[in-house]
Amino acid sequence: MVFAGTAGEVNTSPVISVLLALAVVLLAAKIGGDIMVRLRQPEVLGELIAGIILGNLALLGIDTFRFLREDLVLEILSELGVILLLFEVGLHTTIPDMLRVGGSAFLVAVLGVIAPFFLGWGVGTYFIPQADSLVHVYLGATLTATSVGITARVLIDLKRVTTDEAKIVLGAAVIDDVLGLMVLATVSGVISAAEAGGGVEVEAIAQVLGLSLGFLLVAVTLGRMVVPYYFRLVSILRSEGILLATSLVMCFGFASLAGMAGLAPIVGAFTAGLILEPVQYQELSARHDDVSIEELISPLVNFLVPIFFVTMGSRVNLLDFVRGDILAFALVLTLVAIVGKQVCGLGVLKQGVDRIAVGLGMIPRGEVGLIFASIGASLMLHGQPIIDSATYGAVVIMVVITTLVTPPLIKWRFSRLA
Amino acid sequence: MVFAGTAGEVNTSPVISVLLALAVVLLAAKIGGDIMVRLRQPEVLGELIAGIILGNLALLGIDTFRFLREDLVLEILSELGVILLLFEVGLHTTIPDMLRVGGSAFLVAVLGVIAPFFLGWGVGTYFIPQADSLVHVYLGATLTATSVGITARVLIDLKRVTTDEAKIVLGAAVIDDVLGLMVLATVSGVISAAEAGGGVEVEAIAQVLGLSLGFLLVAVTLGRMVVPYYFRLVSILRSEGILLATSLVMCFGFASLAGMAGLAPIVGAFTAGLILEPVQYQELSARHDDVSIEELISPLVNFLVPIFFVTMGSRVNLLDFVRGDILAFALVLTLVAIVGKQVCGLGVLKQGVDRIAVGLGMIPRGEVGLIFASIGASLMLHGQPIIDSATYGAVVIMVVITTLVTPPLIKWRFSRLA
Repeated sequence: MVFAGTAGEVNTSPVISVLLALAVVLLAAKIGGDIMVRLRQPEVLGELIAGIILGNLALLGIDTFRFLREDLVLEILSELGVILLLFEVGLHTTIPDMLRVGGSAFLVAVLGVIAPFFLGWGVGTYFIPQADSLVHVYLGATLTATSVGITARVLIDLKRVTTDEAKIVLGAAVIDDVLGLMVLATVSGVISAAEAGGGVEVEAIAQVLGLSLGFLLVAVTLGRMVVPYYFRLVSILRSEGILLATSLVMCFGFASLAGMAGLAPIVGAFTAGLILEPVQYQELSARHDDVSIEELISPLVNFLVPIFFVTMGSRVNLLDFVRGDILAFALVLTLVAIVGKQVCGLGVLKQGVDRIAVGLGMIPRGEVGLIFASIGASLMLHGQPIIDSATYGAVVIMVVITTLVTPPLIKWRFSRLA
Repeated sequence: MVFAGTAGEVNTSPVISVLLALAVVLLAAKIGGDIMVRLRQPEVLGELIAGIILGNLALLGIDTFRFLREDLVLEILSELGVILLLFEVGLHTTIPDMLRVGGSAFLVAVLGVIAPFFLGWGVGTYFIPQADSLVHVYLGATLTATSVGITARVLIDLKRVTTDEAKIVLGAAVIDDVLGLMVLATVSGVISAAEAGGGVEVEAIAQVLGLSLGFLLVAVTLGRMVVPYYFRLVSILRSEGILLATSLVMCFGFASLAGMAGLAPIVGAFTAGLILEPVQYQELSARHDDVSIEELISPLVNFLVPIFFVTMGSRVNLLDFVRGDILAFALVLTLVAIVGKQVCGLGVLKQGVDRIAVGLGMIPRGEVGLIFASIGASLMLHGQPIIDSATYGAVVIMVVITTLVTPPLIKWRFSRLA
């Protein structure tokens, strides 16, 4: 056996398990998608459910798909997927489009943070009255963040991404990310100050806000001015596939800058897509039969995006749903999470826009809510974590349900729009 | 700062550094490629050199690009790249094509293993006479393996991948991988037996051979029979992007199976491409304006393949080239590595085939030679590693030079072919 072992080493590399994982994930995504197409539901719902099933087979003693929850490479590939998805969405949208709906998007975002925040605070007061009021406040904060990946995917699949409703939701999601950062910074700051007995560091909160707003402003204004020169410069390059490579460089560059500014990388990718217009790259495009960036990145999106939704589904632990002690709490939390975002619709100023469609688009909390809850679980107050295990379980259920109900709701409402 | 830190955590994830790395790598690849296009050299040479430069900036005190050598995600992405590249090459080739050149490919592979093996053995005897003769034998073994990625890439770029010369090189490279495994298993087995004082475990060597040949036989015969049913089955699926997803499932599935059988995953990917023919998937293809798999995977290849060659370049340590003590040894080793593979050309049976083109295509040792050398460095004989630091350095230089000289040589010779 010593030779087999030695020779085996030649080609043993982590890539073998990644390859197998990718094959399984892609096949599961397409089968799940197929079932949903037959049920006239969005495919992404099938991808999520396929992930939930694979991820929970361990409950039946089948441990084969545990890697879905744990594999770092799969996680990065899935994040690349959602980044490219938001880049694609941004490509379908222009800055003037966004400015036209800017007022509505801003109000929708603000209402969509305020309403769930106070509703969540109230639910906390009712269900865990014994906890410190800062715990209730923090619970409210976990309800504020919108996770735009699901909505973006369904809108792309439905070819409704250029509607005013879609633009308002996308714009509001970007603003929401900034507001969510502020809320989290403020609430965490107050908690840390209460714990340490010191004052709240206002400058630190201002810094968070300044950095994230600064990125968006610089990206949209300076970025938009520089992009034509960037494409003029790179069009000097005579290597193959320049258009795809240089657009990816822009997408990944903006996404990482956004991440460094504290924002979600997807916000940066969306911004990159937003400021990119065909006129800027027509010279490069002309070299390849006038291909558009959308066409070039489409196979990348088709490969990577299902990985995102299947692995997202696989992280759902079905055992969380059978905890009788938290089910009522979780369901009420979910209800206010949904209702809270319907208030958003009132923020729409623009005539003729479907307010319900906008509100539904803002429902999913996705991974952002989970990240908030995880941070809460590591923040201590009076020797106790702010988010204890039961509350964390309730937040998980809220995130899962808001994610799963959104695709059918969006499909139902946006299919009515022209 | 506590708030900034806390809020920052929300979006801090390993993906940010990967995004930045990808942007840098893609840009460097395209700039390197551009310079080579202007010098009328293959682009891949520019990508390798761009990687060498970035990876060695640390010598000038610039540590920024150290991640290129170390990042696991980048490594996996680059392996996915070379796997898709060989899948693409396989798609350009059919089983009857390969059978037509099969005799030549087999003889080329056998001669391409035997000649470098004995030449390397001789060089070892001359330059390190004090070492055990098993060390000389092992050195010969490190010269046997062909790394087909470079050749495949240049042939694709030159659009010469369907020539008989290309098919012989590709077929020989697959056979070479099996032979290389055998040589390594045998030599390591003899060394371990010598060290332990026992006999050589023939069954273990037979197992290595059986597993790898078994994979190839089953893949080509059974796989070819099953593929039409596979595509008929998956064409039931109504989800989007079925053709791309199911071809990737096949490519990744075959690559991981090859890996499990001890072969290089690229051999599996090539085999998957080989047995896949347009007639098998015409029904799926018809759904999307008769698009071919080649067209669908081309953006994936364009995104991932440059990552492979830039990171491969970045792993070259230029300090290895200034070790005066090993330079003569290294250069002679490189020379016999190149000359040894030229003997291959004599194995070409088919009329009208350019023997020099075939020999040149077999030159690069790439990562396979390095893996052999690494295993040698961990095999002990009389308390000493089989491959000591000086010999390892010489192997590295041989790998780098054979990799770098091949693109211009192939371009020169294949450009003359019709």
